[in-house]
Order: sequence, then structure tokens, then C-alpha cells
Amino acid sequence: MQSTTDPALSGTGLYSEIQQFYAHQMQLLDSGETDAWADTFTEDGVFAANAHPDAKGRETIREAAGKAAAQRIGAGLQVRHWLGMLEVAAQEDGSARVRSYALVLNTPAGGAPAVHASTTCDDLLVRGEDGAWLVAHRYISRDDLR
Amino acid sequence: MQSTTDPALSGTGLYSEIQQFYAHQMQLLDSGETDAWADTFTEDGVFAANAHPDAKGRETIREAAGKAAAQRIGAGLQVRHWLGMLEVAAQEDGSARVRSYALVLNTPAGGAPAVHASTTCDDLLVRGEDGAWLVAHRYISRDDLR
Amino acid sequence: MQSTTDPALSGTGLYSEIQQFYAHQMQLLDSGETDAWADTFTEDGVFAANAHPDAKGRETIREAAGKAAAQRIGAGLQVRHWLGMLEVAAQEDGSARVRSYALVLNTPAGGAPAVHASTTCDDLLVRGEDGAWLVAHRYISRDDLR
Repeated sequence: MQSTTDPALSGTGLYSEIQQFYAHQMQLLDSGETDAWADTFTEDGVFAANAHPDAKGRETIREAAGKAAAQRIGAGLQVRHWLGMLEVAAQEDGSARVRSYALVLNTPAGGAPAVHASTTCDDLLVRGEDGAWLVAHRYISRDDLR
Repeated sequence: MQSTTDPALSGTGLYSEIQQFYAHQMQLLDSGETDAWADTFTEDGVFAANAHPDAKGRETIREAAGKAAAQRIGAGLQVRHWLGMLEVAAQEDGSARVRSYALVLNTPAGGAPAVHASTTCDDLLVRGEDGAWLVAHRYISRDDLR
Repeated sequence: MQSTTDPALSGTGLYSEIQQFYAHQMQLLDSGETDAWADTFTEDGVFAANAHPDAKGRETIREAAGKAAAQRIGAGLQVRHWLGMLEVAAQEDGSARVRSYALVLNTPAGGAPAVHASTTCDDLLVRGEDGAWLVAHRYISRDDLR
């Protein structure tokens, strides 16, 4: 498996498709649809980070997401995950490596929005049986943790 | 009229085109060109929100935008509307439904930028006679108002 | 040389390609790879701004970027440049004019992210010998400086 950062090989159709995938995925998370969100990971998907231990496997990821969403609701926060500045590298096996930036914004009821975290996001995306993208591996690095 | 969230049907060309439409539209608003901004709505367009009564019709929208721009100038604020995380669903009749996130950032002269509002934006876009996109219906939901 | 803002002429492939260019360029800057970042300017490129004197020529830009990066590291800040809301206008000579918004976010170790600056970015992009985009002229206007 070789990788490329050649824009021509990455494909511009691919770029928009992956932007739409992330928009869909983050909207699921922020609206509390954590079951549907977890289904955007492969069955053996890994959610790694510098802020917490790795979550390995879709069911572990699902459980962790459900708990985190319940905490946010309990705290009265509407969270928005913004993911942008995507650098997409198509792989020869049809997968895609994507390095992006993500911001987490929290808005309390009746209060002002605050930028809660600035992170990088390193994903390995693969296509599921229906052709839709799935996260096989994600690594989130929070900028404040050094 | 049926809708689809199938990325293939949504079309990747469409996705970039709509990103460019929003960039153009928001730059008009933030530079105070509220007349040109209002012209990006259909004649019977609706601007609805959870923060204020509906503005119905392009001329009503134009008037409200002009007043809001005058207030911002009076307050010495440079406003920037960032719209992102677009989920585009092409409709069979050629229109497009777009759900996105938007941030409003205010910068006073000589001061630091502040995130003023975090919102969702639900748009129905249609093509005008010249093929350019127009907003037929917009609904802005501020995250702090619950 | 004539310009166009016609989305059909701007090309949607072009739009994604330029988004990827900016993601790559800003990731280089924020990871401290200021040499590689400076190489994304033409040899006679200009970095102009309302916050500092013009930097003229790639080597001048390289030197200024290196000093700024050293300052940020000395201050213990992880900086993230978000560039978005791109309005791309393809030029008949193959170059592209791009007006966008940019945010600078600073995160101290162990601290909360802060929006340091909100700016507009006006670029003239040209293709280098290998077809990759290069910045021939950039003008950054900070929203707080008026």
C-alpha cells in the first residue's frame, strides 16, 4: 500500500465527498444520535486520543459516546464539532488518510459560546459494503495537552 | 418531490458550488452590501429563526438586514459569518436542502474577536433564472436559545 | 487578463483543489515547518498585511515566518490557522484570485483555546512548474486594525 498527497490522485470529487461525510458524522454526534454516530466506525474501529485511553471496537466507541453525550446534556451544553482544513491523501487500496483540524464549541442555555478545545484529527477512512465511508482509525490530539 | 442524502446523487460538483455560494453570500453581508445580500433570496423568500419573528419576502429581508448592518457599524463591530459543516441533499426537482453550522464572530476596533453566536442553518436553495442559487427558505437556530 | 466569478468557469474541481492547498499550507505553518511553508510562495511572492510592513520575496517571507514560529514556541503556544469561506475566481491566464476568511487560534499548554485574530485573506495563486499552486501575492487584513 502506497500513499499519495498528489491532488490529482486524491481526486476533487473525493475531497467534497469526505467533507460531506464529516459534516454528517459530526451532526449526528452533536444532535445526540450517538448510536448512528458509532455506526460510522468500522466494527473493529479504534478511537485513540492524547486525552483518554483508546476505545477499541465499535461497541466500545458507542458506549463511550453515549456516556459523553449524557454528560453534556446533564451539563446543559449544546456542543458543536467543527472539522476543517482537510488534507486528504487517497491510498492505492481505496482507503483515505485525512489530517484535519477540529474545534469543539460549547454553548450553555442562555450563555455565550466558548471554544472548548482545539485539536488535530488523523483518520484512516475505508469504504463499507454500501460504499459509504467509515472510520477505521482515528487519533485526536488536543492542543492543550503537551 | 423526494430527497436524498446519497453523496453520489448530491454530486460533488454541487457541493463545492454551494460552498462557494455561501462564501459569496456571507462576504456580502459582512462587508455591508446588504442590498446585494438580500438579492440572494427569492422574491418570496423566508428568513426564519428562533431568535426573532420570521422575515417574509425579499424586501422585508432587505430592510431587516440593512437595519442590522447599521447597528453593527454603530457598535463599531466587524462581523464575520462562518458557515461550514455542510450536509447537502440534492432534491429531484433541482433544489437543494442544506443543513450547516454557522458561527458569528465579532471584532471591535482595537479589540479581540469573540464568538458571538453558534447556530445551525437549515436552507432550501433553488436556482434562479440565471442558474445561480437563491435561498427560498432559511431557518437559523441559535444554540443558546432553548 | 479578465476575471470571472462564474461558478461554472471557476470549476468545482478547482475549488476543492484550492481548499486542499490551503489545508496543506496552514498545516505546514502550524507544525513549525516554516521552510516548506515559505516554498508555497513564488520566488518573488509578496506577503502584505495591515498589521506589518510588506515582506517581499520568498527568502524574506521565509525569514519572517521562522522568527514568528520561534516566538510562538517561546510563548508556549500551539497556533492553528483556519482558513475558510473561500470565494474562488479563476482567471483566464490560469491563475486564481481567492478571497477568504482566516482565524488564528492560540492554545497554551494546559489552557483554553482563544481566538487571537479574525482576518480576511486576498490571494493571487499561480501554478508552479510542477502544477502545484503557489501564492504570488497575499494580503491579510486584520479585523481589529481599523
